[in-house]
Amino acid sequence: MADLVEEAKKKASYAAIDEHVDSSTSVIGIGSGSTVVYCVERLAQRVKDPNSALKIKACVPTSFQSKQLIIEAGLLLADLNAHPVIDVTFDGADEIDESLNLIKGGGGCHLQEKLVAAASKKLVIVADYRKESNALGVQWTKGIPVEVIPMAYVSIQKKIESLGGTSKLRMAAPAKAGPVVTDSGNLILDVFMGILRGDAVLETHLKLIQIPGVVETGLFMDIAGWAYLGLQDGNVKRMANVTSQEKQWKSV
Amino acid sequence: MADLVEEAKKKASYAAIDEHVDSSTSVIGIGSGSTVVYCVERLAQRVKDPNSALKIKACVPTSFQSKQLIIEAGLLLADLNAHPVIDVTFDGADEIDESLNLIKGGGGCHLQEKLVAAASKKLVIVADYRKESNALGVQWTKGIPVEVIPMAYVSIQKKIESLGGTSKLRMAAPAKAGPVVTDSGNLILDVFMGILRGDAVLETHLKLIQIPGVVETGLFMDIAGWAYLGLQDGNVKRMANVTSQEKQWKSV
Repeated sequence: MADLVEEAKKKASYAAIDEHVDSSTSVIGIGSGSTVVYCVERLAQRVKDPNSALKIKACVPTSFQSKQLIIEAGLLLADLNAHPVIDVTFDGADEIDESLNLIKGGGGCHLQEKLVAAASKKLVIVADYRKESNALGVQWTKGIPVEVIPMAYVSIQKKIESLGGTSKLRMAAPAKAGPVVTDSGNLILDVFMGILRGDAVLETHLKLIQIPGVVETGLFMDIAGWAYLGLQDGNVKRMANVTSQEKQWKSV
Repeated sequence: MADLVEEAKKKASYAAIDEHVDSSTSVIGIGSGSTVVYCVERLAQRVKDPNSALKIKACVPTSFQSKQLIIEAGLLLADLNAHPVIDVTFDGADEIDESLNLIKGGGGCHLQEKLVAAASKKLVIVADYRKESNALGVQWTKGIPVEVIPMAYVSIQKKIESLGGTSKLRMAAPAKAGPVVTDSGNLILDVFMGILRGDAVLETHLKLIQIPGVVETGLFMDIAGWAYLGLQDGNVKRMANVTSQEKQWKSV
């Protein structure tokens, strides 16, 4: 099982890189999580190929982890403020529905991931077959990750209850006593608002993002253009929602 | 002029404290800014009065400044997470329209101010006559303060431009080289979106708050129940919008 899943992640990542990075690609966003490791591996292979025609001038990370991945692979680490327009970003997801709505943030990096995604002309999601779902909350049952300002997490929990939801402060044990602290110094509430289908994804995001102290939700709508899913049989399933990608980009 | 303004701030603050703090008041929120200093002064006077019937058990600050004010006045410093329901909060504002919509954040503390305000049953604004306005942006011409995640401020500025606005990164000079860093470690963009009347206040807030990386805007709608404005003639003008206060509180 473990090998099968790793093989699926790798195949999806290699296909995504090979089909979305070419000699016209200049600035690349590097997501977080276990699948993105294979994207960076493949990208480094292609850059180091003596026959490579690639002219990548910057890789923008979405987390401490992806910064380390970029450095270790010998790629060019860069800053979102220096490169506010990214050609293509590769990132994982915790759950992907048929419209390419996503739940992200199982790894606690969804704030920076959304910042980089929002600055990207193309967002390509890479994952294994376990992440596909017909509605958000079906496969991923650990709640919607919501990054919050530490001083208000209790009052935010109360507001979520008044919206009919529940939430849990994500704890770091056994790695650290107390809560998970994000790369931006905030806390994470895992929020349960039921199964989300269609318009309910955006509606739930809007309810949560308007609560004072909510920095970002792990619901990503109208932002992913492509998804590459590694399947159990060794094939890669390709999904596209280019309309949604264009809609997001036009708003930049 | 300076004396007149200080006297106006003091009179408004004393009236607000005297009319909204009584023996039933348990938890008080303390805002930030130059006017709130007089609120804390009056509150401490009343607490220390040997005939006082007050039973205040906690003062929740909205900034490093108000934390210091509470400590120096000998009041009981407390935490929003320990007291997620506040009886009444006193805070200043940079501009106040006829419906008690506010611009806040000239002092860079509007994130924590909004967190405390949102947890308060009653929000009482104290200010001098210069802050009253018939529409937001008329008197306060320095822009809407918007707290943003540092790594994305350039891409956020681009999104604001695509919404038809402009913005400036608030600098700290001469106090510090580089930008103002907030008490939560973020940056502030002062955003220009024209004069805001009626529904435009909420609409502008919603456009801004949905940009990834925007933590909080300095537009406060449907949250202030009362405003006390110190006038040039020595009187205090009282404004109320209790419906809006109840609307906010019902949503908690």
